Amino acid sequence: MTGVLKYKLKLGYDGTAYSGWQRQKGVLSIQEVVEGALSTFLRHRVFCVAAGRTDAGVHAKGQVVHFQTPLTLSPSKTRYSLNALLPEDIRVFSLEPVTSDFHARYSALSKVYHYQVHLDAAMDPLQRFYRYQSMQRMDLALLRQAIPHFVGTRDFFSFANEGSKGSAARGAVRTLYRLDLIEEPWGIRLEFEGNGFLYKMVRNITGTLLEVGRGKRSPDEMPALFQARDRKRIGIAAPSWGLCLMAIRY
Amino acid sequence: MTGVLKYKLKLGYDGTAYSGWQRQKGVLSIQEVVEGALSTFLRHRVFCVAAGRTDAGVHAKGQVVHFQTPLTLSPSKTRYSLNALLPEDIRVFSLEPVTSDFHARYSALSKVYHYQVHLDAAMDPLQRFYRYQSMQRMDLALLRQAIPHFVGTRDFFSFANEGSKGSAARGAVRTLYRLDLIEEPWGIRLEFEGNGFLYKMVRNITGTLLEVGRGKRSPDEMPALFQARDRKRIGIAAPSWGLCLMAIRY
Repeated sequence: MTGVLKYKLKLGYDGTAYSGWQRQKGVLSIQEVVEGALSTFLRHRVFCVAAGRTDAGVHAKGQVVHFQTPLTLSPSKTRYSLNALLPEDIRVFSLEPVTSDFHARYSALSKVYHYQVHLDAAMDPLQRFYRYQSMQRMDLALLRQAIPHFVGTRDFFSFANEGSKGSAARGAVRTLYRLDLIEEPWGIRLEFEGNGFLYKMVRNITGTLLEVGRGKRSPDEMPALFQARDRKRIGIAAPSWGLCLMAIRY
Repeated sequence: MTGVLKYKLKLGYDGTAYSGWQRQKGVLSIQEVVEGALSTFLRHRVFCVAAGRTDAGVHAKGQVVHFQTPLTLSPSKTRYSLNALLPEDIRVFSLEPVTSDFHARYSALSKVYHYQVHLDAAMDPLQRFYRYQSMQRMDLALLRQAIPHFVGTRDFFSFANEGSKGSAARGAVRTLYRLDLIEEPWGIRLEFEGNGFLYKMVRNITGTLLEVGRGKRSPDEMPALFQARDRKRIGIAAPSWGLCLMAIRY
């Protein structure tokens, strides 16, 4: 016992069955399940702060969470015990002690999200919860032309939904370090890495890019969408299940 | 209408919810669901013959099935309609006409099965239905030494369970063309390609190889297991959900 200790957990989850990371009344959140397992194991109430507050149905392979406890924990034993307490769709990959100034969200240098779009005529049934199937013809050359308009430090106000806690109120300027289009035999993966993401920003950008690929919008239209600062002018948000939080970098 | 026509379907499925390919009373089989969709679409009863009769919980990315109909079918329209009728865990990838002498099982030159073993401390939650997690220490060098004992033309009687239709009665000699161990960041994949597989043969070989990797059996023991022609001497069958039928070659 050395006062209050801080730990960092790396988590993965299949978001299909949950209403998202954040606790909400009347529905099951990943936060509630993870805090429940930690509280059972540590025998005291635990509050978790996550790097990325993933939405309902969004997955994670590299979510990072911090919590505090007066107890000194063995990383491997704690991981083992938490995984025994957690349902199989939530797994703890690692646990490590961190200094008191570490904050899962505010200390992050960048976050990586992947969005998978299945373009084949038939979905791979083993991937049906993890890829969005787009049935329309997709012009990848057009889609690629729109991408540079999103990379860099920009005001992403137009591409953010109003969040429950109004994160956009802090200003909507964020830096997207990269937005890579990776072609796979089955379709495409959009890889986003940025210093922060507004509410539904990845899904709104993806939805807009897909409309460009379908020929419904011109790549040249992108600057006007940013300038308008109007959420109604952008594309329909891509569905939650194609999105996965891959990594948080510190 | 030109008499009876024969078609070949390529299918994928997540086997989690099913009692296997083959129709059985009182439980839901993939055969029943696929024949149901075909019968609804073609408006006559349809019987399907599959290349590989996958067990309960086993998946497929490249199952091949043939069926007969008096109707001339458009491959893309039929695929589209069948996928609209089928549940999302079964997908038709392609449909093509074949000559009357084609038989999904007997015309096959080889079948490819993959078995995935997760060796990391925590399972990837997005892969939990498609990999078997082995928690014990695994010596891959030992496991590799046992593999050559299985490749080639051999009497696999010891490695076959007694099937409902007694396929082993036709003799248990089969040719395994290759058995490759592929190392992945998360564990291993065993790739089997052979001219035919006896009931539970892949899972029995995998279970035996895993016992070698765990140091419970010596690689040198393998020839004696073949010679004994005794199913009780081999390892415990690896669980169904790590297995996937990948391809049928004609």
